[in-house]
Amino acid sequence: MHILVTNDDGVFAPGLLALAQAVRPFGKVSVLAPDRNWSASGHVKTLHRPLRVKEVQLADGTPALASDGAPSDCVALAVLGILPEPIDLVVSGINPNANVGHDVTYSGTVTAAMEGAIWGLPSLAFSLDRNEENNHTLHYETAAAVAARLVPLVIENGLPAHVLLNVNIPNQPLSAVRGWMVTRLGLRIYRDELIRREDPRGKPYYWIGGDEPTGLPEEGTDIGALAGNYVSVTPVQLDLTAYQALDGLRGWKFPDLR
Amino acid sequence: MHILVTNDDGVFAPGLLALAQAVRPFGKVSVLAPDRNWSASGHVKTLHRPLRVKEVQLADGTPALASDGAPSDCVALAVLGILPEPIDLVVSGINPNANVGHDVTYSGTVTAAMEGAIWGLPSLAFSLDRNEENNHTLHYETAAAVAARLVPLVIENGLPAHVLLNVNIPNQPLSAVRGWMVTRLGLRIYRDELIRREDPRGKPYYWIGGDEPTGLPEEGTDIGALAGNYVSVTPVQLDLTAYQALDGLRGWKFPDLR
Repeated sequence: MHILVTNDDGVFAPGLLALAQAVRPFGKVSVLAPDRNWSASGHVKTLHRPLRVKEVQLADGTPALASDGAPSDCVALAVLGILPEPIDLVVSGINPNANVGHDVTYSGTVTAAMEGAIWGLPSLAFSLDRNEENNHTLHYETAAAVAARLVPLVIENGLPAHVLLNVNIPNQPLSAVRGWMVTRLGLRIYRDELIRREDPRGKPYYWIGGDEPTGLPEEGTDIGALAGNYVSVTPVQLDLTAYQALDGLRGWKFPDLR
Repeated sequence: MHILVTNDDGVFAPGLLALAQAVRPFGKVSVLAPDRNWSASGHVKTLHRPLRVKEVQLADGTPALASDGAPSDCVALAVLGILPEPIDLVVSGINPNANVGHDVTYSGTVTAAMEGAIWGLPSLAFSLDRNEENNHTLHYETAAAVAARLVPLVIENGLPAHVLLNVNIPNQPLSAVRGWMVTRLGLRIYRDELIRREDPRGKPYYWIGGDEPTGLPEEGTDIGALAGNYVSVTPVQLDLTAYQALDGLRGWKFPDLR
């Protein structure tokens, strides 16, 4: 079992080290991650410029590779053969913020796992639900304990083709976590605001600012699970077809094209 | 009806001009698009740096805004109020390459429409299916004719919440297009290859190269529709939950967390 560990915060992020250590009992672990932070980068494939890869060492001495590409590029590089052995499983994280609801389309952590799923590999994304009440300490050890229990389950059971697991973990000591919940994606409420400023030469520039997104803690959703201090495990698919909308659309009176 | 026109190829791309002209009969048109090419950029939200917006003019004299943000940033800027009036509808494109199957998660053209859908706006992405056989001429006029027929249908019928339309158009004269097909997303076959080179100082760098992706032209899919010279209209949703995988996962024996 050859496990690729990547993330979107950069190879030296503490969450990546915790994840690499957590999955080490289950196979050979290779780390290939971005050399810088790519948060909110989306699903990127870098075709317009060459990518560099350099050897680095994690804080515990583990050898690792750092690339100037995006998280999904790191997975593509690994799958396409930059590592001597083929990859069997992809884990991404541990992200220091939750990736729930619509976040998954923006999230570099999740899109790294998506890239793994596109290549047919069982893939998991791990994120810690830091929020306004609990952000003093980051409990990577809790997320690592979750990964150490879930990864062997995935190795044993496999995952359906083109489905990845998006895992969010309460940012609490392990003893405060109440258990597992298999969930659907919930509804994020974004609270972005446009902030206009002027540079020293009087020209405007803009920040996308505002409060952190919140969410509807509906039962059965990832957001609801986290609100109840459960680990949320959401199967995420690559097929984005809105099947329930097909019939409605087929009833439209499409005009002649000629 | 206030229509936002954006794309991922940059504000001066000919596809954007064709799209802006096509939708002009249906309302007030505002153009806010990236100042450079963002192809394969994924769904980006730029939070770590401020964004600039400058006034430019399209080739036909239309005033437009160009931002140094990603396509989805352009939509967010417009929705968050950089334009004096609220947006009612988002159109993105015309991309000079198809966005089918799993492409939609990478595609800047589609993620601009996703951003519109996240904000609750009816949103459409338009792409032209250039392929190895038909790439001598780009038939933007065909895609524009499709947009001019489809946009009023969307204004009339509306779209389900959080569903966007991903529209792919054969790269043919309009007379060669056989009609409309409402489709699901097909299966892309990526043919990426890793290409290793050495720089003048003997250090390696890597290209993600290889042939263009191909696809399975299955009946009922976007890829199948294009293969038969039909316009493909695919409803795409933001909810990526793999619902069919929920029951299987709930049957797993999750170990105790303590």
